[in-house]
Amino acid sequence: MEDRCKIEVCYSPALFQYYENREAIVVVTDILRASSAIVTAFMNGVDRIIPVGTLEEAKAYKDQGYMVAAERDGIVRDFADFGNSPHNFSPERVKGKHIVYSTTNGTNAIHLASSGTQVLIGAYLNLTALVNHITEMGRDLLVLCAGWKNKFNLEDTLFAGALARQVLKDNRFYTICDATLGAMDLYEAAEEDMMAYIDKVAQRERLKKNKLDDVIGYCHELDLTDMIPVLNGDHLVLL
Amino acid sequence: MEDRCKIEVCYSPALFQYYENREAIVVVTDILRASSAIVTAFMNGVDRIIPVGTLEEAKAYKDQGYMVAAERDGIVRDFADFGNSPHNFSPERVKGKHIVYSTTNGTNAIHLASSGTQVLIGAYLNLTALVNHITEMGRDLLVLCAGWKNKFNLEDTLFAGALARQVLKDNRFYTICDATLGAMDLYEAAEEDMMAYIDKVAQRERLKKNKLDDVIGYCHELDLTDMIPVLNGDHLVLL
Repeated sequence: MEDRCKIEVCYSPALFQYYENREAIVVVTDILRASSAIVTAFMNGVDRIIPVGTLEEAKAYKDQGYMVAAERDGIVRDFADFGNSPHNFSPERVKGKHIVYSTTNGTNAIHLASSGTQVLIGAYLNLTALVNHITEMGRDLLVLCAGWKNKFNLEDTLFAGALARQVLKDNRFYTICDATLGAMDLYEAAEEDMMAYIDKVAQRERLKKNKLDDVIGYCHELDLTDMIPVLNGDHLVLL
Repeated sequence: MEDRCKIEVCYSPALFQYYENREAIVVVTDILRASSAIVTAFMNGVDRIIPVGTLEEAKAYKDQGYMVAAERDGIVRDFADFGNSPHNFSPERVKGKHIVYSTTNGTNAIHLASSGTQVLIGAYLNLTALVNHITEMGRDLLVLCAGWKNKFNLEDTLFAGALARQVLKDNRFYTICDATLGAMDLYEAAEEDMMAYIDKVAQRERLKKNKLDDVIGYCHELDLTDMIPVLNGDHLVLL
């Protein structure tokens, strides 16, 4: 199997050390909402995104004149330009700009992933573009789910399953990873009526409480763009 | 919801800190093979099981005259009385005895779980007995999957799904845990032909390599016993 490329899925940043693979392309996903928002921003012409973990970092960038997306518990922070929803990243706002994106789960995942050979941001919005790039590269694939405060979440897992299944159609790829098999089976159970399935996930309740659940349908739309954000040092640019 | 009991599933000992719940009954499971072997031993009359993590500890107990089950990579250790397979825990061997069981994944999980209000060992072999006990107790339930070297595994997850689904039939119980929902959906996908499903899990390959896969069918048999092993200090006794 030496010439073949293995696929693994890691369900939580807290498990990353057990899956780490320096030969792999690492796709970081945080479907509701960071990775969907970041892909949207590139689709709409952003030049650079700087993911930061804490509000303090976000504020420090704001003080230097950056445009900042930052909210916690669904409330836009007073120093921020707008919140974390994909809807905020309209072309008028983001085209040609450098934007700081504050996300607790997502930023940690992106920084961990940086030991990989290439770090990409994945969402349903750029699924097919990812599949094409990964199969062209012919490297191992590790999907890192941002999860929720280090816990497993379903929406990232389903995406990992969707991506793994597509990439496995290329027979140079294989998996012997139970997390990948589980993710694919869950995606298969969910895909026929994704919105009904997503109705039960914990993150939907959290978003709904803050009236932010209007993005859920959008975050599950397929292939709105060919753009793939890639990590370059501490910031994301277009691949 | 204050009088209701929540159910959560933790897919890896490395995630336990994020799920820890001192109010909960913690069911530790390691279907292939530690928890199935331990339940079998109690079914066959063992008096006490001492789970230990390292071979050094197992050997130290052996030197004190204990009967020891210990293998690594499928090979019974020379100082041990027998290996870790459930098949080894026959009534002639174990009745009335104190036995040391060396298991890397399982022991760590059991020790972590000890912060719970009660720690039980769960397997398909005692599934209905567990369900009855948990619903009688009316406490929160946390299922801790031993996993494989801190990675997610399917066989423990399926068992967690089977247990959660049964307990949820009692409407005092609820779940808002994505890992529990995922485990139940995977169990639903697998249950119609469990052996066909288990055919693909990574642990089956590991056991097969060492010709230890003859236990897989047995480890998925339902309700062979009402016995429930419970943690009492550093050792397991009958509940």
